[in-house]
Amino acid sequence: MAAKPSIPKGTRDFSPLEVSRRNYIFDVLKSNFRKFGFQPIETPSFENLDTLMGKYGEEGDRLIFKILKSGDFLSEVEANLLVQPEANKLSSKIADKALRYDLTVPFARYVVQHQNEISLPFKRYQIQPVWRADRPQRGRFREFYQCDADVVGSNSLWQEVELIQLYDSAFHELGLSVAIRLNNRKILAGIAEAIGAPELLIDFTVALDKLDKIGADGVKKELLERGLPQAAIDQLEPLLAGIEGNDQKLAFLESFIGHTESGALGIREMRTVLERVSNVELLNANLEIDITLARGLNYYTGAIFEVACLGVQLGSIGGGGRYDDLTGIFGLKNLSGVGISFGLDRIYLCLEELNLFPEENSEVAKVLFANMGEQEALFANKLIKDLRQRGVSCEFYPDAAKLKKQFDYATKKGIPFIGIIGESEMQSQTVQLKDLTTGEQQSKSVEEMLKFWNS
Amino acid sequence: MAAKPSIPKGTRDFSPLEVSRRNYIFDVLKSNFRKFGFQPIETPSFENLDTLMGKYGEEGDRLIFKILKSGDFLSEVEANLLVQPEANKLSSKIADKALRYDLTVPFARYVVQHQNEISLPFKRYQIQPVWRADRPQRGRFREFYQCDADVVGSNSLWQEVELIQLYDSAFHELGLSVAIRLNNRKILAGIAEAIGAPELLIDFTVALDKLDKIGADGVKKELLERGLPQAAIDQLEPLLAGIEGNDQKLAFLESFIGHTESGALGIREMRTVLERVSNVELLNANLEIDITLARGLNYYTGAIFEVACLGVQLGSIGGGGRYDDLTGIFGLKNLSGVGISFGLDRIYLCLEELNLFPEENSEVAKVLFANMGEQEALFANKLIKDLRQRGVSCEFYPDAAKLKKQFDYATKKGIPFIGIIGESEMQSQTVQLKDLTTGEQQSKSVEEMLKFWNS
Repeated sequence: MAAKPSIPKGTRDFSPLEVSRRNYIFDVLKSNFRKFGFQPIETPSFENLDTLMGKYGEEGDRLIFKILKSGDFLSEVEANLLVQPEANKLSSKIADKALRYDLTVPFARYVVQHQNEISLPFKRYQIQPVWRADRPQRGRFREFYQCDADVVGSNSLWQEVELIQLYDSAFHELGLSVAIRLNNRKILAGIAEAIGAPELLIDFTVALDKLDKIGADGVKKELLERGLPQAAIDQLEPLLAGIEGNDQKLAFLESFIGHTESGALGIREMRTVLERVSNVELLNANLEIDITLARGLNYYTGAIFEVACLGVQLGSIGGGGRYDDLTGIFGLKNLSGVGISFGLDRIYLCLEELNLFPEENSEVAKVLFANMGEQEALFANKLIKDLRQRGVSCEFYPDAAKLKKQFDYATKKGIPFIGIIGESEMQSQTVQLKDLTTGEQQSKSVEEMLKFWNS
Repeated sequence: MAAKPSIPKGTRDFSPLEVSRRNYIFDVLKSNFRKFGFQPIETPSFENLDTLMGKYGEEGDRLIFKILKSGDFLSEVEANLLVQPEANKLSSKIADKALRYDLTVPFARYVVQHQNEISLPFKRYQIQPVWRADRPQRGRFREFYQCDADVVGSNSLWQEVELIQLYDSAFHELGLSVAIRLNNRKILAGIAEAIGAPELLIDFTVALDKLDKIGADGVKKELLERGLPQAAIDQLEPLLAGIEGNDQKLAFLESFIGHTESGALGIREMRTVLERVSNVELLNANLEIDITLARGLNYYTGAIFEVACLGVQLGSIGGGGRYDDLTGIFGLKNLSGVGISFGLDRIYLCLEELNLFPEENSEVAKVLFANMGEQEALFANKLIKDLRQRGVSCEFYPDAAKLKKQFDYATKKGIPFIGIIGESEMQSQTVQLKDLTTGEQQSKSVEEMLKFWNS
């Protein structure tokens, strides 16, 4: 007997129920992307290797899945490379394509390649899988979906305002209470300048970002180790102690970094965004300044966003920010962008934990028609055709098996009703419709059934 | 300046309009799959290499995209393999995963792996991309979607009947007139037996399958070359000349192969399917017996389907059939299956050629609100929030640019209306709504706009 088949580690099969629940999330996100004027694009699952390599740092390069050239992939490899082969050098000779690692680099490539077909600002959303050769662990997979909305070609802070509203609107529709955390790279730069360590910007934000995990004392210790003078660390004290309220935080920042160029600019951007958002009012989300928020700092140049689900311990379920010159790597300079991402797998876990998925599984048929023999089946099939044509999802049991077996099939599949057509039903042109939850049974005409399911 | 970026040959970027049109097709297919009681599953983009290898013949193995092991992929390669390396032998050492080549083998793997979670008959649909290292040409890509519906675990001919109805229903909804061609492997086997050449079954069906392309004389020539005796070829004459009408074809088959075991069984199956289908009546499709239809004969064991779009020269836009023991390769014996596939790319070309795509692009905002300055923008944003919350897709122009520029943006993007809010509109709580197609301009309240777009 063959060994039980399996799938590669870090990948998943999705059952009908899981597909249906994932589609529920995708549908809410898509309808919100659309409401905010974002349009979908799709890019190939694999890109040319050189489109992706070098864009995600050394670690990223290592995690990119490379695709072996088809045919005789060794034909262009010089013999000496094979004498004492190094995987690193050889891989770029025998692989010329790689699986998408994120949606941002392919998006930048798309914008540059199609620059004559698109109008700026270009607002796109993209929902596609990405692949990373990461060590799989709970909630981290080697194949997973990213759901991104980005705008390129606009410096306007209205984009940040709209993206915050988009987060608010989508999570509100999903029934999740969230905190949207907001920071700004310019504020972080202002702080580094104010404490006299602009060259330690990265070090100090990396340490600050860990406040949640290692606490204020841990951060101070790490800052010392990273070479920040004690005097500078003392100045950060109020930040580390935690300040409550956006107004209080802004007031502190004003006095702390208002005199630095970056700091002043960052505060002004932050104020504008907060004021505009408070003018429209969010539906449900809390918008909070979080000066410890860094997220891929090297990448972001202005606003930085992160979303956490209240009441569920799960890390962030979304994030994003403003980046400048993303398309520069592909030769199109000076195009500012800003975008947000939704973490599908974590949103799924939140909805599951909070029991917020819709009760009805839209992928299950409304009714199973039992098979009572050839004549009855021929009759039933005409009726089923009518119901399907008017949008009612029906199954027909393919064999005239014992009724018990047919009932069991419906129950196991979660089909709520069974329709039975025997001789007397054929004569009266009706169906005995049995509710498998309550056990109730009623005689119904086709019209009555249509009304029942389409109401 | 960097070279203009590109994508691997045989792959495609999809623009918003293309995504929207492809989704239109996917949505119609999904809703029809659902109406017929099929449920979605999804499988990983890559499978273990040994799950796929050897399942598609030698040519298939060559066309499977293999993924390089991550990290030091050479560590497990014996040194002697590298001395005079052969791509064939080496690839299975340095690659352990491969991209999905079709949806059928992963489906079989899924059924075996999850056999304790599913109830039979298991009706699943699956819409996912597959990858083949084929030579790209018009209409043939290296990454493309397959859309499959299959049932496993039922021998009932009602499955064939329902799949024919499913084709009919889906193509009817898409507005396409189609011919569904029907054959049966058992009939082909009966013919081979009747002409005294059962061992030449494959040869003769391969030749017969080319009737469309090379004509009757071409087929006869090829049959002779393949070793069929002239006497046998003479017996096929009526088939090659073409018989019109399902009843006539059945009558011919009855006299020709009714005495063979396979032939009699095939005719009986064919009759049952045709009678049941004619009892329910198809919405639009022509159902035609086509004895020359072979399609992957080695694979199918009963019914064979193929769909052609009438009025468009494009080959088949769908196909399928019954296969036995698909799951046997993964250790689960005696599970019969039957399934059909929809060819997304060709259906797209048909709808395009016949101008059948919906006129409205659902991915374009209904209205662009112009940006007339900060105060107006703040006002507009509240109103936009109301509209979006009630499902109206709106864009807001992010900068107080010249109106001409804002109008151009809307026109280029295909947004049909522009909403303008100046000082007097702020006072009267209205919007000047301009129809960019007709040039008409009307003052509207929020309620009036909601009625306008939600009616």
